[in-house]
Formats: sequence, C-alpha cells, structure tokens
Amino acid sequence: MVKVAVVGLGTIGERIADGLAKQQDMKLVGVADVAPTLPVRALVESGRGYSIYCSLPERIPMMEEAGIPIAGTLDDLLEQVDMVCDATPPGIGMKNKEIYQRHNIPAAFQGGEKHEISPILFSSTANYDMAKDVDYIKLVSCNTTGIVRSVVVVDDAFGVEKSVATIVRRAADPSEIHKGPIDAAIPGKVPAHQATDLMLVMPHVEAMGFIITVPTTHGHVIAMHVTLKKEIATEDALEVFRQGRRIRTFRIDEGFLSNTHIFDYLRDLGVPRADMYEVGIWEETVLAQGRDLYWIHNIPQEAIVIPENIDAIRARMGMQADKWEAVDTTDRYLGIYKG
Amino acid sequence: MVKVAVVGLGTIGERIADGLAKQQDMKLVGVADVAPTLPVRALVESGRGYSIYCSLPERIPMMEEAGIPIAGTLDDLLEQVDMVCDATPPGIGMKNKEIYQRHNIPAAFQGGEKHEISPILFSSTANYDMAKDVDYIKLVSCNTTGIVRSVVVVDDAFGVEKSVATIVRRAADPSEIHKGPIDAAIPGKVPAHQATDLMLVMPHVEAMGFIITVPTTHGHVIAMHVTLKKEIATEDALEVFRQGRRIRTFRIDEGFLSNTHIFDYLRDLGVPRADMYEVGIWEETVLAQGRDLYWIHNIPQEAIVIPENIDAIRARMGMQADKWEAVDTTDRYLGIYKG
Amino acid sequence: MVKVAVVGLGTIGERIADGLAKQQDMKLVGVADVAPTLPVRALVESGRGYSIYCSLPERIPMMEEAGIPIAGTLDDLLEQVDMVCDATPPGIGMKNKEIYQRHNIPAAFQGGEKHEISPILFSSTANYDMAKDVDYIKLVSCNTTGIVRSVVVVDDAFGVEKSVATIVRRAADPSEIHKGPIDAAIPGKVPAHQATDLMLVMPHVEAMGFIITVPTTHGHVIAMHVTLKKEIATEDALEVFRQGRRIRTFRIDEGFLSNTHIFDYLRDLGVPRADMYEVGIWEETVLAQGRDLYWIHNIPQEAIVIPENIDAIRARMGMQADKWEAVDTTDRYLGIYKG
Amino acid sequence: MVKVAVVGLGTIGERIADGLAKQQDMKLVGVADVAPTLPVRALVESGRGYSIYCSLPERIPMMEEAGIPIAGTLDDLLEQVDMVCDATPPGIGMKNKEIYQRHNIPAAFQGGEKHEISPILFSSTANYDMAKDVDYIKLVSCNTTGIVRSVVVVDDAFGVEKSVATIVRRAADPSEIHKGPIDAAIPGKVPAHQATDLMLVMPHVEAMGFIITVPTTHGHVIAMHVTLKKEIATEDALEVFRQGRRIRTFRIDEGFLSNTHIFDYLRDLGVPRADMYEVGIWEETVLAQGRDLYWIHNIPQEAIVIPENIDAIRARMGMQADKWEAVDTTDRYLGIYKG
Repeated sequence: MVKVAVVGLGTIGERIADGLAKQQDMKLVGVADVAPTLPVRALVESGRGYSIYCSLPERIPMMEEAGIPIAGTLDDLLEQVDMVCDATPPGIGMKNKEIYQRHNIPAAFQGGEKHEISPILFSSTANYDMAKDVDYIKLVSCNTTGIVRSVVVVDDAFGVEKSVATIVRRAADPSEIHKGPIDAAIPGKVPAHQATDLMLVMPHVEAMGFIITVPTTHGHVIAMHVTLKKEIATEDALEVFRQGRRIRTFRIDEGFLSNTHIFDYLRDLGVPRADMYEVGIWEETVLAQGRDLYWIHNIPQEAIVIPENIDAIRARMGMQADKWEAVDTTDRYLGIYKG
Repeated sequence: MVKVAVVGLGTIGERIADGLAKQQDMKLVGVADVAPTLPVRALVESGRGYSIYCSLPERIPMMEEAGIPIAGTLDDLLEQVDMVCDATPPGIGMKNKEIYQRHNIPAAFQGGEKHEISPILFSSTANYDMAKDVDYIKLVSCNTTGIVRSVVVVDDAFGVEKSVATIVRRAADPSEIHKGPIDAAIPGKVPAHQATDLMLVMPHVEAMGFIITVPTTHGHVIAMHVTLKKEIATEDALEVFRQGRRIRTFRIDEGFLSNTHIFDYLRDLGVPRADMYEVGIWEETVLAQGRDLYWIHNIPQEAIVIPENIDAIRARMGMQADKWEAVDTTDRYLGIYKG
Repeated sequence: MVKVAVVGLGTIGERIADGLAKQQDMKLVGVADVAPTLPVRALVESGRGYSIYCSLPERIPMMEEAGIPIAGTLDDLLEQVDMVCDATPPGIGMKNKEIYQRHNIPAAFQGGEKHEISPILFSSTANYDMAKDVDYIKLVSCNTTGIVRSVVVVDDAFGVEKSVATIVRRAADPSEIHKGPIDAAIPGKVPAHQATDLMLVMPHVEAMGFIITVPTTHGHVIAMHVTLKKEIATEDALEVFRQGRRIRTFRIDEGFLSNTHIFDYLRDLGVPRADMYEVGIWEETVLAQGRDLYWIHNIPQEAIVIPENIDAIRARMGMQADKWEAVDTTDRYLGIYKG
Repeated sequence: MVKVAVVGLGTIGERIADGLAKQQDMKLVGVADVAPTLPVRALVESGRGYSIYCSLPERIPMMEEAGIPIAGTLDDLLEQVDMVCDATPPGIGMKNKEIYQRHNIPAAFQGGEKHEISPILFSSTANYDMAKDVDYIKLVSCNTTGIVRSVVVVDDAFGVEKSVATIVRRAADPSEIHKGPIDAAIPGKVPAHQATDLMLVMPHVEAMGFIITVPTTHGHVIAMHVTLKKEIATEDALEVFRQGRRIRTFRIDEGFLSNTHIFDYLRDLGVPRADMYEVGIWEETVLAQGRDLYWIHNIPQEAIVIPENIDAIRARMGMQADKWEAVDTTDRYLGIYKG
C-alpha cells in the first residue's frame, strides 16, 4: 500500500485528495494546508475524515480556533508517506520541493510551477515511462492534459503529424471572483505554450496553437485541427473518441448545447461537485476530410488533471507494469474505466 | 402514505421529485415530461428509479428511442396519485389544471403561472392554513419565498411593519444559455411584484421593492430593509436568523465572499447538485439601528421552493396538525431540520 | 450623383446611413423604419438631418407622436432613389425584395438573409465584379467579411491554398440584453458556415472552420491559420497586414490587451460610436512558419460591413472602373484610406 | 483666466482634461502622466493638442520613443498653474500632495484617496462653500456623487430625513480586464460607505445603504428609498428630477431597458466616448407613497465626477458667487445646462 499525501487543498488539491482516497491500493495519510479556507472547512464539515496537517506551525492555533482539527505539522505528515502530490499555488511548490528533498520523498507538481522544478513534463498517456526514475515530476497544465489525451488516441489509431489547437480559455474558476475579464476576449501572443507544450510530451508531433481568454467559468473549450498520416472517415474518428480512455462524447442534438450543459448534467447525475475527470468531445464537431481531422473538446479545468496526478504516483512508485495498466487501474477506482 | 406525482421535469420539477422521494410519509408514484431532455436523461442514467410517464402520448416512441423507459401516459399517472406538483413552463400549468380537474386531484403550481390559476398565493411559513381547503394552490416565486422566510422569522420575533426589498436578480440558471444580458443591469418598473407579493401572504406587512436583473447565474441577492415594531440590537437579529427555519447564515470573513462561494462550498460538501434548500444570509450584512433592520440574503433559485412545494402537499392533504409540524417534517426528511 | 436609401435603422442600418452620408458622390435621400426605436430617436435628437420615412403607413401617427418627423411612406422614398441598402431584421429583407422589384430598383441585403434572396454572395475585395449585373446582392456576414479581407491581402501577396478559421463569436451587441449566454461557451457544429462561406467568394481557397459563442459584446475574435503557396517570414506577413486595405494592426505590448481595449481606444480618440470599419489584427499574434501563417483578428461586428455595403452600390451602379478604385473611393470618404 | 492642470491621465483624468478644455474661463495648461498608456496615445493621435508632461523625469525618453511629445516635467507644469486636478491611482495622490504643497498650489483629489488627504469631502451641489478655504479637496466617489445629486434636488424640494441606497456596483470599467467577478454577486458588509458618505456632505440626512458588486461595466445602478418631510405625489418627484441639474430622465417604455441602452444611445447621438455627465433616472422607477419616495438611477462611473471636479476649481478659486452660479457655468461649457 503506497502511502501518499496532498499538500495544498485548493481547487485541484482537494480533488486530488478525493481521487487518491478512492484508490484502493493507496493510502491517503493526510492533507496539508495553511488556513481555514472554504475547501478545508468543507472537508471537515463533510466528515470525509482525512487527517489535516498545518504547513505553517504558527497557524495551528488559528486553524484550531476555526474548528479545524490539526493532526500535526507538514513535517509530521511527510514522515509517514512515500510520495506527495503538491497542489499549492504557483511558486510555492518550488519552495516545498526543498522540504520534500530533505525528507527524501518524491513529489508531483502541477502545471503552474516553473519548468525548472522538474527534468520532465508529464502526461501519463503520452510519456508514462519517463516518470519512473524522476523524483520531482511536473504535470502538464489542464489544457495540455486535454489536448494530449485526445491527440494520443488519434495518434495511436491513425498517426498524427501536426496539431493546431485554438484554446478558448475560461478566465476563472466559478468562485475566483477577483479574476476578469467581464466583457472582453483576450488574445494571447502566438504561439500559446498550452498548445505547443504538447511537443514536450509527444515530440514526434508538430504542435502550434492559439489561446483566447473569455468570461466563462465552466471549462476551456478547444477547437482542434490535426493532420493525420492517412485519410480517414469521420465515423472512424468518432469511434476512436468513443472508445478512448478518459474521453467522453456528447451530442449537441441530445441537448449538450454548451460546456455549462455538461456541467449541469453532471449536477443532475448526482456526481460530487459535478466534476468530470474526462475530456468532453461534442460528436457533431468531429469532422474528417482527407488527412485533416477537426473536433472541439471541453476541458473541465477543475478535475481533469486528477487522474494524471494519480498516474504519476503509479509511475514513480512502479506500481504497474505499463501505462495502460496504470491508467486503467486509476480509472477503475475513479469509476471512469472503459474496458 | 400520500401518493404524489411531479409533472414537468425541468430545473424545478426534477428537484421537487428528488425532494418528494426523500419524504418517508409520501410515495412518489412517478414523474411526467414530454421529451428526452437532459434532466430526463440524467434521471434515467443516474438510476434513481422513478417511473417516467409521457404527457404527450404521440411522443412516447421518440422518448423510448432515446432510451427513456416510459411507464405510461399522464392519465395513467394521474389515476394513481392523490396530488400533483406541476412544474411545467409558465402557461402550461393552466392547461394541465383542466386535466387535474378531470381526474379530480388537487395540484400545486409554481410562481410563473398566472394568479387566476389559484384563489390563493401560498408560502407555507406565512399562510400554511390557507391551502387546507383549496384544490389548486399557487406557490410564490423563488424571490418571494426567500423574502417570506426571513421576514416571517423577524416578524415572529419582533413584529414587522414594513419591508423594502431590492432584488438583484440572476438573469438565468446556469445552462439557460439563450437568456441575457451579457453586460447590462436591467431595472424593473417600481414596485416589483416579487417584493410586493409579500403582502399577499403577509397582509399585515406593508411591502415595497425593486428588481434589477444582472448577468449572474448562482442566486438572486436581495438587500432587505424592514421596519420593526420595536428597537432591537444586531445580535438579536443574528440570533433569530441563526435559529430560523430554512435559513442558513454565512460569514464573509470565513470566505463566503459571494453567492458563488456558497455554491462552490456546497459542491465541496458533496451535496447533490450543490443545491441549497435554505435562504442564505451573510452575517456581516445584518445591521439593526433602532427599529430599522437591514440584511442581505441569497436565494438559490433552483432549489429554494422545493420545501414549500412539499409543504403544500402536507397542507392540502391534512398530513400535519399545524404549519411548524409540517415544516419540520418536510425539513427532517430533507436533512435541513433545525430542532 | 447616385441616390440611395437605407431601409431598417437598426445597429447596421444606422451605420450604413452614416457611411453613405459621407460619400460625396452619393446622395442619401432618406432612411425608413417602422417604430420610434432608440436609433431613430437618436437620429432625430442628434440633428443629423436625414429624412425619415415610415415603412408601415399605419405606424406614422405613432411615430409622429413620439416626436419623429415622417417624410412619407416607404413607397415615397423608393420613388426617389436609384438603389437601396436593406438592413432590416433577418427575413424581412425577403419580403421587402418584392417591393424593390415593384419599384424596379436594385438592393443590397445583409448576411442574415437567406441565400435565395440573391444569386451571389458579395464581398467587394474578393468578387467585386460579380455585383455588376445583379439586381439583388447579398453581402457576406460580418465574420466572413473580416476573414475575406485578411485572406484576400495574404492571397494577393503569397497565394493561399487553405484557410482554417476558429471564430470566437461575441454572443450579442452591447444592448441586445435578451441574448445570452451569461456563463457558457457554445460550440457550433463543424464546419461553421461563417468560415466556409469564404469559398463562395474565393472559390480557389479551401476553407474550413469552427465557431464558439461566448459572453462578450465587443467583437468577434478569430484565430486564423492559412496554408500558403510559398514560405514566408513573419515580417513579410506583418508588412502585408499593415499595408492591407481595411485592416488595422495593434500591438498587445502597447496596451491593446483585448478587443475591449480597442473599443475603449476608439472612444478616447473621439470616433463616433467608437466604431471601427477595419478588421483589427494583433501584431504579436502573427506568426509564419514555412508555408503556415497564423494570426488573430478582431471583427467589430457593428461597423465592419459598412464599407462593403457602400461598395455594393458602387459595383452595381458602375460608379468606378475596378474594385480597388471603388474601395479606395469608399474608404477616402469614410476617412480610412490607405494610399 | 484660471490656469489648471490634470495629473494622472487614466479613465477619470482624461475626462477631466477634456471637461476643463471646454471651460472658456479656464486654461488647461497641460496634463501629466508617467507612461505611454492608451489614453496618452489616444490623446496624441486625436490631435487634441494638450501639452503632455512626464511626472517621472527618467521616463521621458521612453515616452518620446513611443511617439509622445513631452513638454517637460511635472515641476515644469506645476510652475505654470493655479490649481491641479489629481486623478492618479489611489495612494499616489497622497504622495503628490507634498509636491503640490511645495509648489504652493491647491489641488482636488478623487474619491479613491484616503480621507486624511483633505479636511473635507466635497460634492458641489451639497457643500460647495466648504471648498472655499481648503487647499486640498477630496471629492466623493462616483456612487456618492450620483446619490448626492438626486438627494439634493429632492431635499431642496421636499426635505429629506433619511436615505437608504442599494448600490448594484459595476465591477469594472470596460477595459479593466483583470477585474472580476465573471459570474457572481458580491455583497459588501453593511453599511456601505458609498451610501453613508452622503452624511459627510449632507449631515442633516440619515443615510444607510448596501453595496452588491456584479459583472457589468456600463454604470452603477442604485435603488434609492428616501423618507421625506412631507407627503408628495409621484408626479411631483418626476418634475423635480426632470428639472434637476445634472440629472437626465429616461423612459423604459421608450426603449431604455438597461444601463447599456443608455450607453448605446449616447453612442448613436455621437457623444464623445458615449460619456454622460448626468446621473440617469428611469421615470417608471420613480414612485411616491406618502412620505416615501423610491427611484432607480444609473451612475455612468467614467464621467459622472467630471462636473464636480471642475466645480471644485471654481469654489477654491472663488470664480463664482455661489454654488448654483458655479454649477451652471460649468454645465453651460459642458453643454448640459438646464436653464
């Protein structure tokens, strides 16, 4: 049983914790944060029962006064675990890395950290094996995670030469009320790294792309155009997406008119937080013409990187023999397995 | 065991159905709709097991093709039940009323229907007894429901002479993508009926108010100003709100900075759909000055009317002796009971 | 002096009228509408002095009561003019066409009308000559207008084989408050006609594209990717865009961070309505790689089609010898001439 | 001829400069800023001809490289003027005050500065005379300016005892793209200082209020409820508002459905920047009941404080005998005089 911890209980961290808690071959020893934030309060109130540690010892009294039971310090937590997922705000991970090194435990970091935190950029379905011998692993961003997933399955099926992604980026998560814009579309300089980072995990693909930020909160929407190694039919691509791991297809004609409809549907299904681990592809946006393949997918930015974070532990800890065995194990415990 | 049905499975109807299914002294016989909408699809996929009936017989093949198992027609459903909650789009209820009359069963209708559908306007904590002898009961709107709840508890405690409500109305539910505005605030003519409707259920209070529609989706926010019959202290009011049924207080200083923070907190708690049955009051917005009392509350428009719909059945069916016994019974089954 | 009229004084029509009024070789005889809308009221209050006609005779008293001086009926107007620009809401143009035919005068229609209204789809810099012998001319939509303009100048300079456009569509004009979404991104089915319509006016280019609608009001933002007939350098493309007619370049590094910054800049310049006739290209989004050229441009949807409407009159009336002479004449009078 | 300068050329500063330039009994000697921002670039490109000074001497080369002709340093500017309007970002004014003191010239500061910058809080129609002997004058915020204007005219006509304002605050100006929220309503703690600041300029009125921030950009919308000293009829109040200085009334039934409709109407009128100096009141929101008066007004936050800034100069420089003479002089030059 691999023992793990999550450091930083924000939007991503709390979801990694819940995802790890579902992995029956891992033990979530505890989570660490520095203040009685709403995610921390909700964790206590919901009775999920994770042990909570305080990364800043001087904050312990303040957290306890707020009704948060504290099991110990970050050092206390790290002494009990084999590996950490660090989901602290950008820049903090780099400082925490020194602490993890001192405790001699490996860690996975999120896409917001600087590249120098890790010798590799990781996305399990693309380069799982690279994490085997690396102590500090940086995952790709949520946008790149989604792009990698769908490009990998297309690449496996038909061969991909080139990828051009236009990312319509949701500017903020729902309660990030300090972030705008309110009524503007913001173009990024070209190329957008979220699109070209694909080349760092799939070096044989030429990747290019745009990013345009807009006032929405329920998912990045990405228009994809890839050039294949051979001609295919639209139905071929649809079949690949329907079968593809961590991909879920939706039909506009069934009522999935926007990314918010997907979110609302998950609410109606009773899924916790209305979270979706998969990338969503609208079937009527998939079009193959000769060697060109087009589609639009939705990146539920809050939850999409959770499976890959769990995979990073599997890879580094050598828990499974190969990537698909690891991916399938993660997915089975998360309840999104496609046999 | 009172047998009930829900007709119209939109945003409100699907939530009434879930609320009724939790009432252990009622039996949800079935729900009826006319198309394989996303709520209907989610109901089937989630395995909640409600029997689904089709209100338009000619649509049965279409719904079955979409994978929706159909238990029968609306008439089939109505023959098995004692009372109906109708949550169809505005205007449809009036047509359905004739069907319910033909089947000789009483029904509760939502706030969007015209007043002439019912001799009364109902909000249980204010005028529960009025529904006892009325077959067709119209509930007040979501905004008025919230206003009634908080004004009732203040009135019970201190006596209310006058109420002035300024409703900052969320323009659309999350996936109502056809509705705007995108970047505008829309003033309603004064007075706003959502504020003055209070007088229809609490005739001893003079009520006035404004409505301004804005581009948000997570709850109407209402600034309340009431004139009391006596002077009180702020802490007195806070105590009343903290104890008040179907009211939940939040502290800005704990991180509940906006109505979307409340929504996100409910997501983190794991509450289905992140729904909240209660009206939310921010404690730092409560201020008493002499006989003037001020506060701001949040109306989670998707779920707030569910308890009162259930209460309407209790009232009409004579299931409890008085309003608080009925309210407490409903709330206990919904998991929001304040002892 | 060619005598012209504008029928329909909405967002587009009022701007066509102002544009025509500036053309010193044309005479704007009058404008026609059916109600005292805000554009009509503003026209009167601003003292611009256009004669206003009423398209529905029974509405004349109502308009006069509202303080709108009425010069006559639509028939009265049509008897005095050589050609009409029809900017009525989609569907009305088709009905008006019969009236124009009865008066034996040609007309230009907007992109919202059905294709069958005209044998051609017109965008002056692409297919100016096609309007010479056609009585009823339909212009391309605002998005296609922008795409045509930038693709034409690239095609003239380097040759274009293929165009893939991803349109991030502003969902509504500023005061179209009934239109949403508020917090959603809406994917269109692929291909998007606004992108592929390019082929109807530039048949030698293979065109493909996406459309994603978002909650903004200040311009469609389009990510463009074209395949050229030869390799070029980024600077070559920049030079072509800087010189290209009806194109204006902006630098992100100078502060033009979003499409709304462009709008605000035009406000600060004192430009009427903060309108921009040109398509805007952000220089830092222009990137050439081999035969691939990438850029992002902004479509100020309210004003962009005005020059092409004026050109349609020049083409049909035979006012200039060729397209560039016509375009330059229009632009000189509009104050956007690039020599 | 009073010689004046504007320091800080942001949204407010550039508008003060334009307003001062129209005052025929004042001379705008120059404006000062520290970078080639878009307002500074637009000022140069538009050819308005104001002399531009650089507040940070070391930035002069950078601004000149950007094409901004620099007339000198801030010290150079201050030596030529009798008084300054400081419209720098909050906090900078306090530092600049020392410079103005060194040059021995009075200054007016904006509402974002801390109260200690000035012994008084100024709003000309309420307390004009207080600025006569004060060297450093702080104006009230845009919201308070609007509230003061409408309460003053009501007070003059009927006597006001109490004012309760609910401010629906636009979260950002159009191109403030870094500011949110995107989809949330943010309650402020009660009382909101923007509402109670009224008491600082009208001490005889008891003022209370709420503030709720929402995702819009075109004006704060405020629901007002005042208690009068006598009973009036709605028509009495309407007449007062129609005649009231710096107030403009609009009718919802004429098409002014939202604050953005007002903005768009001003665009159609050809008003520079679509700016409005007046507070806007929707007539159908005005309602008198006994001694209670209700209305909703719109605060065009970008331009509303301009007249009061100009008045501050008139007051301190002793240019007119009394407040109404000053106000009328300012308004006549601004083109908004109500005789």
